[in-house]
Formats: sequence, C-alpha cells, structure tokens
Amino acid sequence: MPASAAASAREILTRLHDVMASRTPAQAKLNSVTQIIGEAITSEVCSIYLLREGVLELFATRGLDQAAVHVTKLALGEGLVGTIAQNTEVLNLDEAASHPDFAYKPETGEERFHSFAGVPIIRRERAVGVLAVQHSEPRRYADVEIEALQTVAMVLSELIANAGLIDEGGPGTTRPAASTAAVRIAGQKLVDGMAAGFAVFHQPRVTIEHTVAEDTDAERHRVYAAFDKMREQIDRMAREAEFGVAGEHVEVIETYKMFAYDEGWARRINEAIDSGLTAEAAIERVQQRTRQRMRQISDPLLADRMHDLEDLSNRLLRIVSGQMGTAAQLGLRQDTILIARNLGPAELLEYDRRRLKGVILEEGSLTAHVTIVARAMGVPVLGRVRDVKRLIVEGDLLLLDVGEGNVFVRPSTGMEEAFEARLALRQKRRAAFAALRDLPPETRDGHRLTLMVNAGLRDDVAALDLTGADGIGLFRTEFQFLVSATLPQRERQQRLYREVLEAAGERPVIFRTVDIGGDKALPYLQHDGADEENPAMGWRALRLSLERDGLMKAQARALIEAAAGRTLNVMFPMVSEPWEFDEARALFDAQRTFLAGRGKRLPIEIRYGAMLEVPALAEQLDLLLPKLDFLSIGTNDLTQFLFAADRANPKLAERYDWLSPSILRFIRRIVGPAREAGVNLAVCGEMGGRPLEAMALMGLGIDRLSITPAAVGPVKAMVRSLNYGALKDFMDELLVRPPRDLRAPLTAWAEQQGVELA
Amino acid sequence: MPASAAASAREILTRLHDVMASRTPAQAKLNSVTQIIGEAITSEVCSIYLLREGVLELFATRGLDQAAVHVTKLALGEGLVGTIAQNTEVLNLDEAASHPDFAYKPETGEERFHSFAGVPIIRRERAVGVLAVQHSEPRRYADVEIEALQTVAMVLSELIANAGLIDEGGPGTTRPAASTAAVRIAGQKLVDGMAAGFAVFHQPRVTIEHTVAEDTDAERHRVYAAFDKMREQIDRMAREAEFGVAGEHVEVIETYKMFAYDEGWARRINEAIDSGLTAEAAIERVQQRTRQRMRQISDPLLADRMHDLEDLSNRLLRIVSGQMGTAAQLGLRQDTILIARNLGPAELLEYDRRRLKGVILEEGSLTAHVTIVARAMGVPVLGRVRDVKRLIVEGDLLLLDVGEGNVFVRPSTGMEEAFEARLALRQKRRAAFAALRDLPPETRDGHRLTLMVNAGLRDDVAALDLTGADGIGLFRTEFQFLVSATLPQRERQQRLYREVLEAAGERPVIFRTVDIGGDKALPYLQHDGADEENPAMGWRALRLSLERDGLMKAQARALIEAAAGRTLNVMFPMVSEPWEFDEARALFDAQRTFLAGRGKRLPIEIRYGAMLEVPALAEQLDLLLPKLDFLSIGTNDLTQFLFAADRANPKLAERYDWLSPSILRFIRRIVGPAREAGVNLAVCGEMGGRPLEAMALMGLGIDRLSITPAAVGPVKAMVRSLNYGALKDFMDELLVRPPRDLRAPLTAWAEQQGVELA
Repeated sequence: MPASAAASAREILTRLHDVMASRTPAQAKLNSVTQIIGEAITSEVCSIYLLREGVLELFATRGLDQAAVHVTKLALGEGLVGTIAQNTEVLNLDEAASHPDFAYKPETGEERFHSFAGVPIIRRERAVGVLAVQHSEPRRYADVEIEALQTVAMVLSELIANAGLIDEGGPGTTRPAASTAAVRIAGQKLVDGMAAGFAVFHQPRVTIEHTVAEDTDAERHRVYAAFDKMREQIDRMAREAEFGVAGEHVEVIETYKMFAYDEGWARRINEAIDSGLTAEAAIERVQQRTRQRMRQISDPLLADRMHDLEDLSNRLLRIVSGQMGTAAQLGLRQDTILIARNLGPAELLEYDRRRLKGVILEEGSLTAHVTIVARAMGVPVLGRVRDVKRLIVEGDLLLLDVGEGNVFVRPSTGMEEAFEARLALRQKRRAAFAALRDLPPETRDGHRLTLMVNAGLRDDVAALDLTGADGIGLFRTEFQFLVSATLPQRERQQRLYREVLEAAGERPVIFRTVDIGGDKALPYLQHDGADEENPAMGWRALRLSLERDGLMKAQARALIEAAAGRTLNVMFPMVSEPWEFDEARALFDAQRTFLAGRGKRLPIEIRYGAMLEVPALAEQLDLLLPKLDFLSIGTNDLTQFLFAADRANPKLAERYDWLSPSILRFIRRIVGPAREAGVNLAVCGEMGGRPLEAMALMGLGIDRLSITPAAVGPVKAMVRSLNYGALKDFMDELLVRPPRDLRAPLTAWAEQQGVELA
Repeated sequence: MPASAAASAREILTRLHDVMASRTPAQAKLNSVTQIIGEAITSEVCSIYLLREGVLELFATRGLDQAAVHVTKLALGEGLVGTIAQNTEVLNLDEAASHPDFAYKPETGEERFHSFAGVPIIRRERAVGVLAVQHSEPRRYADVEIEALQTVAMVLSELIANAGLIDEGGPGTTRPAASTAAVRIAGQKLVDGMAAGFAVFHQPRVTIEHTVAEDTDAERHRVYAAFDKMREQIDRMAREAEFGVAGEHVEVIETYKMFAYDEGWARRINEAIDSGLTAEAAIERVQQRTRQRMRQISDPLLADRMHDLEDLSNRLLRIVSGQMGTAAQLGLRQDTILIARNLGPAELLEYDRRRLKGVILEEGSLTAHVTIVARAMGVPVLGRVRDVKRLIVEGDLLLLDVGEGNVFVRPSTGMEEAFEARLALRQKRRAAFAALRDLPPETRDGHRLTLMVNAGLRDDVAALDLTGADGIGLFRTEFQFLVSATLPQRERQQRLYREVLEAAGERPVIFRTVDIGGDKALPYLQHDGADEENPAMGWRALRLSLERDGLMKAQARALIEAAAGRTLNVMFPMVSEPWEFDEARALFDAQRTFLAGRGKRLPIEIRYGAMLEVPALAEQLDLLLPKLDFLSIGTNDLTQFLFAADRANPKLAERYDWLSPSILRFIRRIVGPAREAGVNLAVCGEMGGRPLEAMALMGLGIDRLSITPAAVGPVKAMVRSLNYGALKDFMDELLVRPPRDLRAPLTAWAEQQGVELA
C-alpha cells in the first residue's frame, strides 16, 4: 500500500474506532459505518448485510432505500451478496446485473447502480456478513479501495461480535450452509477403531478481539517481538524435531523457516499495522489477502506452501495474542476427536487418555511415530484427511470409523444409526472374546499354542491380564526412545524394564533392543543417512546399534540390572548375518561381566534371540541356530523385503498377500531346522494377529505367536475351534502345487471344518 | 530503499554514466568517480583500488595523498582493502585501526581518518578491486550509504572492464589467490573413469555489459517480461520434469516456484532499477545483497534455499540478457569436463560425445537417470561435489579421477604426473584386454562361459564387436524412455529394436521390457505412487506395466514387428510371483495373435524369460521354471532386497558383500532346479562384471554372465587363467561352513592357482 493510502486507511480506522467506542446503540453504529465508508471511498451506496438465522439481512445502508433495511434478505448463495458470503470471496464488478449470480431486489431501489463491489465480513474464518458498495457509473473499484473495504470488514467483524449482532458458536445459525450439513470425509486407515466425540483442534484458532490499534508503535513492537519468538521456535524445531517429538516433517520446517525469515511477509504485516490495525488484525489481514491471491493460482505445490504459511501465520497470531497453549494444555472437557495437521508422539501423550477417543490427521503416515504410539495406546487414527479446516468446526460432533476409512461430521440420524450398529457389533464380538480370557489357546485335538502379546509402553503390560496371554513375545524398547525429547537415561530405561518385568510376574517378557534409524529417526540421534532414499532398507536397528554402540551398551546394562534375580530374554532386530548376532551378544556379555565385577546382582539367566526379518539370514540358518535360544520371524518387515514391496505403499499393500505360497513356503523352510536345533520359533507381526493367517501359520508348524492384544480373543477363538491334525495334513497337501493365493482354499476349508474366523 | 534514497542513487548513477560516456582517459574517469562519490556521501576520502598483477593498487583517490596513487599496493588479504577483496565482503568500521587486519600505509596520510568503509568491486563473481571511503570522525556509515557504495562499485566494474584496466580472463592475474592455486575437490563416485579437460559450466554465467540504465521504464518492462518468461519456464518444469528430462528435483522446483512468485524479490529488483541500474545490474545487485545478508546466517537449510535462489537469479539474468543457451547449444570447442548442479539425461545427450570427457555434478545420485545414461555412454561422473562455483572458473584445466573420488582443479605438476601415471596404467590394462577380443572365454580345462554384455542405447551394440561378446544378455529398453521428453511412439521403439537386432546379427539379444516407476519415474507417465517412501520397493517395473498395460502392449507390438523373421527374446523385470509372468506373457501372445491376424510377418520364435531379483520368486521356482525359456538373476536389486540394504546408501554399500555366504547360497539354490528344468540361467548385474565375483559365480555353476562391456576383458582374462574343476571343488567345500566373508579365501585361492584378477 502506498504511503498516502496507508494514511487514509488509518484515518478511516480512527473514525471507525471512535464510532465503536461511542455509547450509541449497535444499529446507530452500523449506520455511522456506512456513512464513513461511503464518504471515504466516494461511493454512492454502502451497505452492510449480516447473517442472522442463516440468512443475510440488510442491516444498514447509505444510498439504498431505508425501507429495505431489515426487509431485504438473501439466502447464502443467493445473489451477489449471498455468493460473496458463501464463497467468502470478493466481487468487484463494473456491471453488476450482467453477473450470473445477480438477483434484483426491487425494494432497495438499486437498479440505478451499475458498479458493485462487496467483501465478506469474516469471523473465525467464516463469513458472518457482507460489506458492499455500489456506484451508478459503470467502473471497477480500484484495488486500493477493495483493500480498504477488506480492512473495514475486519473491523466490522469485531463491532458485530461485541454488539452481539450475530450468534457466536451457536449450533448452525451463524455458519455458512457448507458447514452445517452432515458430511462424510474419507481418509487413510492408520490405526483401526471406532469412536464418537467432539472436534478439538490441537492448535486452537485465535479469536481476534481488537482490530483497531490504540497505539500503532506499540503494535509494531508486539509484532517484532512475536517474529523473534517465532523464529526462535522454528530454529529450535529445525534443530530438534527431525522426525521426533514434534510432528512436523523436515521439509515443512524448511518452508516455515523460509517464510519466518521472509522480509516481504514481515513488511506487509507492518504496512497493515501502519494502516491502523492491531498486530493480530494485521497478521490476519495479510493472511486473508494471501489466501485470496493464492486462490487464483491452482497449483498443488503452491497449495502445500500456502498450507505452511497458514500454519505459520496462525503460530504468529498465537504468539502475539498470548493464546499459545495446545488443546492438551487447555485440557479436554468431553469425549474428544483430536484434529491436527501432524502430531508428534510426545504431543499425543500429553492428552488425557480417558477423554481422547480418536485422532484425525491432515497428513500422517503408517510409519510415523505418532501412528505407532497411537496403535499401542489403542487410539484410532485416520490420516490424510483433506479439508478438515474447511469442513469441521471446533465442537462439531464426529463419528470416526477408521475401519471404513471415514469420519462423519455432524452426522445425520441415518449415519448415527449405522455407526451405532457397527459399534454394537464390534462390542458384542469383543465381549465374546473377553469370555475366552481364562481358557487356554488349545485346539480341539489338544494342541496347545503359546499365545503372547506385543507391547511397548508401560501400560501395555495390563494387556497380559486382560487377555490371559502367555507373556510378552515382543517388547519394543524403542517406544520409550520415540516418545522422549532427549535420549532416555539408563536409569529411566532400567526403571521401565523393571516395572514391566514386575507387572508380568512369572510370564516371560522378550525385550527387543532398539530398532531405530531409517524411517524411525530420533531427533537427538543424528546420523549420516538422514536423507536415505529407501529408509526401510537403510541404516537402522542393529546396523546402527553396532556402530553407535554407546546406546546399546547403556541399554544392555539397563536390561541386565532390571532383570536381577530373574530370567532376561533379549532379542536383536534386523539381524542380517550371523556375525551381527555374535557382536551384539558379545556386547551384552561384556556388560554382564562388567556388572558382575562390580558386585551387582545379575539375572539368573540371559537368553538371546534374533529377529528373522531380513531374507538373507534364512540362507545361514545352519550357522545361526546353534547360537540362539529363540528366533522370532518378524512378518511385517520380512514380507516387504521378500516381495520388494513397501507395505506403507497403498498401491502395493494389497498386491502381495500374506497367504502367498512364497511367504508360507519361506516360513516353512525355517520351522524344521529350528525344531531340530531346539530353538523356540515364534512369529511376531500383524500376520499372526489375523485368525486365517494364524491358522495357516499353525499349519506350517508354528507353535508360538506374539500378536497385538486386541487380536488375542479372535485368534484364541480360532484355535479352540480347530482340529490341528487335519489342518497340518491340509496345509502340507496345499503347498505341493499351490494356487496363486491360498486365501480362498484356506477360507473354504475353515468354513467346512467349522473353524471360527472372526 | 526509501523513495528519496532511490532518487539520490539515481542522481549519482546519472553522473557516473556521464563520466563513463565521456571521452576522457580511464584514469581521469576514475578520478572523477572518486570526486562524485566523495561528494554524494559526504565522505572525506574516497579511493579506488584495482587488482593488477595479483596485487591491489591504489588507482585513484580523493582525500588521500595523491603521491600514493599507483604507489600504495596491498596483497590480497593484506590490510582492510586486501581483506575485502579476498573475502568479497563489506567492511564498515568506526575505528579502522582497531580492526585486526588493519595495515598502516604511511604514504597515504590516512592516519587522521578513523572511520572506514569499503566494498568489493566485483566482476564475474570475483573481486577485481575495492571502493573505500574514510572519515576523520569515528562513525559508522549508514546502511543506505553502504548500499550506494555497492551500487557504484557495480557500475565501476563496468567502467574498469571497458577501460581495460584489468586483464579479463587471463590466466590467474585478475583472480583472487584462492582460485589460482591447485585444488583437489572430493565427490561421490557415480560413473567410474578418468578424464582430463577444461571446465565448462552447463549454464554459463552471464556477463553484465551495461549497469547504468538509459531508460528506466524500458528496464522495468524488460524485467517484467523476464519474470513472466521465467514463471512460464518454472511452471513447465513443474509439470514436465518430475525426474525426467531436466535434472532438477521436485523439491528444488517447488522452491524455484515460490521464489519466482515471491513479490518481495521482484520488488527489490524494481527498486534497484528505480535507483538507475539496468535490469541485469539490478538483478545482480539484489542477488549480491542477498548473498551478503545470508552469509551472516549459517544454516544448512537456508544455504540450500540460497543455492536455489542463486540458480533462479542466474536464470532470470540469462533470460533478461538474452544469453539463454546452455553450453551444449553454444557447442564445445575442446575437451570438456562439464559442470552442472544437476543434469537430465536428455540434457546430457545434447552434448557432443567426442568432446565431452566427464561430468561434475553438485548434486546427483547413483540412481539418477543421468547417472544411468552416463554410465551407458561411458562418460565418467563425479557427484556431490561441493563449492564448484567458488573453486572452479570456466576454462580451468581439470583432471577427473572418479575412481579415487577426486577432481584436480588447475593441477600442479605433481598432480598431473600422478594422474598421468594412473591413466597410463589403466590404458595399458585396457590394451591387454582388447587383445583378448577374439579369444573365447574358456577355462584352462575347456569349460566355455557364455559372456554377454548389457546395453541400453543404440550405440551400445558396437560393444559386441569391440569386446567379442556372445550377445546382449540384457537390453534395457527403458533407456529410450528415460531420455525422451515424451512417451516414445511405437514406431520409434520398433526402429530402435530393429536396428539393434540388425547390428547384433547372429548374436542373440535379450530385450527386457521397461523397468520404470519407483525411482525411475517418467515425467509423462504420472502415477499415484509418486511420493513413495521406499521407491526401490515400490510400484515399478512389471507391477506398473501390468496395471498400465497400454505401455506394454505398444512395446510388445514394437518388439514383435521388429523381430520379424528372427528369434525374439523377451524378459520381464521384477517378477515377484509366477502369475505375473503368466499375465505378461499372455499380453505378448495376444499381440502376436493380433499381428498374425493382420498378416504381419512374425518372429520365427518368441522366447520368454524372467528376471529373478525379488527374493520371494525363489520360493516358487517349481511353479515358475516350467513356464520359462530362460531366467536371469539381477544381482543389483536382488542383493538389496535380500539384505534389506539400499545399495545407493553409502553407509550400507560396504556392509554386505557380494561374496557373503547368503548371496552365494541363494544363487546356488537356483542353479540346480534351473538345470533340471532345462532353463538357461544367467547372472546380469554388476556382480558378474568383477573378476573375483564372476569366478565365485562360476564356482556355483553359473555358465552365463551378462555384464558391462568394460568388464568383458577383465572377466575373460580371469576365465582363461582358471581351472574350472578345481574351482567347483573349492567352492563346494567352502560353502559347507563358510566364514563371514568369502572374499579373503577366494582371493587367496585365486592367487595360489595363478588366476588373473585385474
């Protein structure tokens, strides 16, 4: 804005401010506003329409027939004014009547006016009214005039809210039609589950209380200080948060950084302050203008960047207004479905677990830390949900059905009924499985399966009692690392391990040493491979642990001390060649010797095992098995390497089935040698948690499964309805000349045999 | 710059312009310049130092003792003036004498002056002199004064160049010391080889001819037009170039786009034009200022973005100046080492192959298309080379030694000698291998290996005659796709295939259908998996071809028609399960039937084969082998999946050896069943091209290798010195209880047996 324009804008704002501060009634104030604006931009007509009971009503005008005030009403989307409000867009027309949305209202006497410009009056990112100017001469309004109108509209929104002219936050009445209707939004299934709750945004929107500055210099200083603080925050995020505690991706932080240091942005905000706005209003005003400009460029790359700028602008607003807390810090007051762009695992853990029923992420991925942690917490997560900010309002009732990949917003009765029915079915099944808790996972012909659970958090140990499982077959120690902002000290690790062992009592716990690196990078553990092209096949797990052995030494000591007087089971992840197992074991032995030398109480026994998830390891079983106490096949990673198919890739997720002959034959190759070597062989991974797949594994001779606690019931039900001998015969036969996929024949056999497949 | 500052800057420039246009001698012009500047910024001293014969010489002064002119000289790095020139940085000091670099020159009489400010005079991104002002009063110069000095320095550089006061482009004399010394720069080995040549930048720098505008309005329009054109270019890049024809990555293009549409940048350029500069000078001036500001922020993220902005600024300069061609379009005039940030395969192919001896990339990766194509062309490529723009000047002699991961810039005699020695050795070896051309790859005890070459370009077929190979064991049809800006039409494909078959004559050619997708995305073939997390395990090769079967149908017809009257060998990549082979083959059969129905002449026979590179396929050999005519083990991909270790990851490249027992045992598992089924089994991939690895493969019973042409000589030499029977016995024994790595025992055995391992 040129200097003179800024000066005149400031003058208008000063006059508006005086009007707002005066003790006249709201209606009189609106009338004065139309007066001031009409004069300021030499327009023949200036009118204010406000949304009341879902309809835009003419509240004040200078230039139109006064008889039309509170009489002329337009629905959202009706006429030019309705279009502006519905799309929250600006119209600037030299010939209003030729616009396709034009609707003539005879009571206003507006037929003599040719040119028309209108801007939405926006509150909480929604139109609550329209400010319009008209002129008899057919000319377009200048950009600077439109700018001035938008600034005035912003001030008006404050006046309107303070005067109580619109219903704020009430159900529906002040919202545009688009956000009152029931909507179904689709997303990607990240953590299965169903939940009902009210929408809460992780980073609450800032409501701007004052738009006109009392002291422009003071406002300028507030913005400077906020910029400094924001830059500090971003710099810290860049240092700390690679994929760690905070949820943002590196690329997003890079863009944040660029904007945060962009002098153009800061300058535009300063110009808006010069025009008389408060710091908050100036930030919002600039953001509105950017939104509007960007709307004209349809480009997915730019859209992403705009999303970043929106976030950053919101961050700046939150800093400048002091409204800085996340929803977690404000506390949840009712059953909540949390909405965020991204979320870090530590951020998720800040929420009250009793009230947090589900999470909706605009981004998110299957391998993100927050997904892993939410799965462990049993909180359903739907990811890659588009347009949440446009379609969902804080407080909306949401029905989350991750299994179906949906969230229902402000559900209709029909939606609610369908949801309830699905939920009831789900709960009924659960109750049936709970009844199996104290019954053993034994087949009809007396074959006993060892059924264990996977865990990673302290609280997960409760699942042992809830499910009646035989132990923890896989304790993922990296969880504690993923949810910490700094490297967990040995004492903290030891405390966790001891608590887990104590809670498990007589039941065995197998601790897997940390599997980090690759796609599970930790912010406090920098490594050179940070930009790996294929992180799943990267420098991770044991590869990283053996090179950076300080981490593993600390973990070894923590585990050995925690298991004093008990049996300690240690398992190494991603073993690719036998020498890696040797080196890892030697490292544990050295720590054991060290602690013995210091007179520490030691475990009665340390049993060592390996994960088999790298296909190459299967070629050297003869060399590996004699070294092991137990071996666990990690089907998640194994199958993706075996098929060279990333399981997080939706295009491939369904292409290669766990019941492919290749996977079953590969596993069968392990069973015999393990048995001969006297090594306990288990399968841990999602595959074993599905009843049909678990049945197939049993048919191959697998006797131990470690699965997610929620799957214990369904798998136990399958086992208890099974004839083991018949299954073995059927599987042996089936694998001789197997069809492309064994799912169909296995399902048919199970049905014919009366095997329960939930 | 405030409006008044712009006006005064313009006034100075106008006066300078008049001086420059006058017919006075250069010395008089410089004197006038010191006069004008001294007056304009009310400074007591204004001096101009120019670099002559490597030394900064006082050329003109107003305020210092005139006796010092052409007498006072400072080395680069000496005193404040020398420091400014060496670091191309600005100094602004209120107390010059207290700066650590201060060096007192008594002849100047400068002791009375306390404050000092100096800016470098820059030409072609190097300091050619210094413009300094001094003041007796100890005060810092204002930012706007420094800005004005910098603008003047830019104009001075033009004056100096036109007056011939400095030697341009001469060897060394006008360069800062840092760029005359011999330097060794390290990089990542992308395509092995050695080459000597002169440095040529893919995108030549623009030399600014005129700095002071004749007509400011005209300059403004030139910049507007250039911005439009640049935005068009960037938009097109974003649409087309995902990883295709142009070399830039998507992220870089995103950043380009953001800058290209950044109004702050455009505005600053306009302000510089307002101050009286030409469009070119304004762009460069803004860029200088940005460089200077950014130098104070040390941050790797921002540094990358600055790199992007530099590129874009250079692009804008090239557009506005009309100096738009790449070095390829200008033509290479001598042996060239090409330097680029990134390069697309099509861009590489534009260069004259006879003169292009090597490529240096600032970025680049092992899996980039340009690397694949350069490898096929036999052009050595060194990637990830830092700081090339600072350390290398167009025309510098470079010795590229990719094998050692080095490039020598302006080499010293010692470097040249070492390079020559390595080169001579390399050439001698080559000559020895060439002598083996007409001898068969047969062992001492009469076992004949089938030795074929890998190819991908039309010209590669020449390798058959040069090496005496038995055929083309792997023709990578995707090369034609990778180097094309649009999908190659069927006719173009057919022509290539026919030419290859004709050139091969009686020798067999195995065509592998396209392996694209994943990390080999094509710009014209959009697919949903574009942001795959692990592209190597992604939606690629046969997976993509079977879903988007239009591409494969066209290729099938092209191949069948091209092979009319001959035998056609077709191989499918990334087969993961037997049904994929069936579907692919059925697609070819359908095309064959279609062409037969149209009366087209058909191949005598079509033989079908599969690549074994996905580990899962090995589990179903019994089902697969009866379907095949031949099978080829692709060791590059196979080993990375088998070990879950990305071979492009430098941290893992050396961790798992091709001579690991797992890989050898895996391959041995295939040999027996293939022989029993009567299926020709070959190994294609880098492994087979290394003599020791090739020997190990032979020891497993592999009789066919398809390797890179350069490896034929060394492998043949190995074969001809080998006793096959002894090798088989040794390998069988070795694999019973293998050590961690077979490299040492195999090497020892070969040495003891007198096997030639080049």
